[in-house]
Amino acid sequence: MDRKQLFKLIRQKRSFLCVGLDSDLSKIPSHLLQEDDPVFAFNQRIIDATIDFAVAYKPNFAFYESRGLAGLESLRKTMDYLENFKDQVFTIADAKRGDIGNTSAQYAKAVFDKNTSGYSFDAVTVAPYMGEDSVKPFLDFSGKWAIILALTSNKGSDDFQLFSDAGGKRLFERVLERTQAWGSPDNIMYVVGATKAEMLGDIRKIIPDHFLLVPGVGAQGGSMQEVAKYGMNENCGLLVNASRSIIFASNGTDFDEKAKAEAACMQHEMEILLSNAGLLA
Amino acid sequence: MDRKQLFKLIRQKRSFLCVGLDSDLSKIPSHLLQEDDPVFAFNQRIIDATIDFAVAYKPNFAFYESRGLAGLESLRKTMDYLENFKDQVFTIADAKRGDIGNTSAQYAKAVFDKNTSGYSFDAVTVAPYMGEDSVKPFLDFSGKWAIILALTSNKGSDDFQLFSDAGGKRLFERVLERTQAWGSPDNIMYVVGATKAEMLGDIRKIIPDHFLLVPGVGAQGGSMQEVAKYGMNENCGLLVNASRSIIFASNGTDFDEKAKAEAACMQHEMEILLSNAGLLA
Repeated sequence: MDRKQLFKLIRQKRSFLCVGLDSDLSKIPSHLLQEDDPVFAFNQRIIDATIDFAVAYKPNFAFYESRGLAGLESLRKTMDYLENFKDQVFTIADAKRGDIGNTSAQYAKAVFDKNTSGYSFDAVTVAPYMGEDSVKPFLDFSGKWAIILALTSNKGSDDFQLFSDAGGKRLFERVLERTQAWGSPDNIMYVVGATKAEMLGDIRKIIPDHFLLVPGVGAQGGSMQEVAKYGMNENCGLLVNASRSIIFASNGTDFDEKAKAEAACMQHEMEILLSNAGLLA
Repeated sequence: MDRKQLFKLIRQKRSFLCVGLDSDLSKIPSHLLQEDDPVFAFNQRIIDATIDFAVAYKPNFAFYESRGLAGLESLRKTMDYLENFKDQVFTIADAKRGDIGNTSAQYAKAVFDKNTSGYSFDAVTVAPYMGEDSVKPFLDFSGKWAIILALTSNKGSDDFQLFSDAGGKRLFERVLERTQAWGSPDNIMYVVGATKAEMLGDIRKIIPDHFLLVPGVGAQGGSMQEVAKYGMNENCGLLVNASRSIIFASNGTDFDEKAKAEAACMQHEMEILLSNAGLLA
């Protein structure tokens, strides 16, 4: 899915919501544990409940890998199920990959090349620490996206991302400046945490056109209003992710209804923000 | 396996060789393609051929993930096979993981917790970009190791790892300084590329006691002599990795014999270096 199509989808659904499928087996409703594949059953119902309100889904690979091959089968079935909604959703492999060039090329196949891996995600999250040859193999896939970590939402982001040079430039700014030359706003997005919304203004000066994947609204405490105020651009330019606040809104048999209500609530807030920005006209 | 046991193993085998199982299906000998699981068959024979000369094995996850579930089954069988050599080898999940705390905890289970994932690696490679809470969950597993990226062997390592502050401190030095406080030389190692051997002296001033995982000898052109000269400490403190130069030493039916010869050659060089350093007495 290209940038134009993504913006079109955002305008159709009046939403820039990404639902994070951090589907922890130990947190899903207990009545699902009698299913053959409880995590897939959970994801399927979450998707059905939220598909009208979300433009993107983002399985967090860690929650599948922690269950070994069984977990990876749940992930596979989930992505096969999402194929039913092709062109209605943007899919993100939240895997934080990155290694030397020949290895990153394999990680790219693992998420983009359906023929070899079975997966055809639209995008993958990428850690920039190893530099250009660790990122570029992901950009070699036409129509696919690398979503590069810039300024993350967690406490530890201060440790290295704010490390600054003699001129006051911080590492995340260096990452933004340097990596944008490796691709374009049509195949690179950046992760910027909602908990750092006040820095979005500075970030938009460096990358006015790129989409941002924004975690940290909801469970982590970031404000959607602030994110939109500082981060929205003329193509919306935002995918705001919510995981736990939606998928674990209830752990009873009504979990999908509660997830739907939560997603609808966020979508409604987003619709107002899009409308106020004149992007729905 | 703890640091004392690892050093004991190094002295027993007179080697600090790590064999990288970057087992690319498109590069293994063609006669293996008739096997049920060609990559597992390849790994099994590589392990049998090199086990006397190597103290560690390091499957590179990308080469398994790129083949989807089939690849991950090859990885599982490979690790089950290595269980036969328990206490004779140190195992490293080369996966470059790292995410916010609750997610890194899942990645840690994925490689360390046999009960949930089926894997019980001794160590995992970790990308430090996201900071303390992204690394610490790996250190919560008793007897397990995080191998943190510091200064990597690839060209792109210059992009961010050499970014420096007003005092001239570079990012990789900041990583070494800050991360060492999160654990100890008994549960943290660092990745330092052999192509940067001249910087090992400076690195040893910051972390005299930690083990270093050193890729880049062999196909990438680094020198083992230089690595030992600047990097060896009183516990050896080095695991030097070779992947392609050993596992793809031949693509004929003699691939295992050629791998053995190459591993033996490296072990011999290591034995001399260990002996010269007085570590075999």
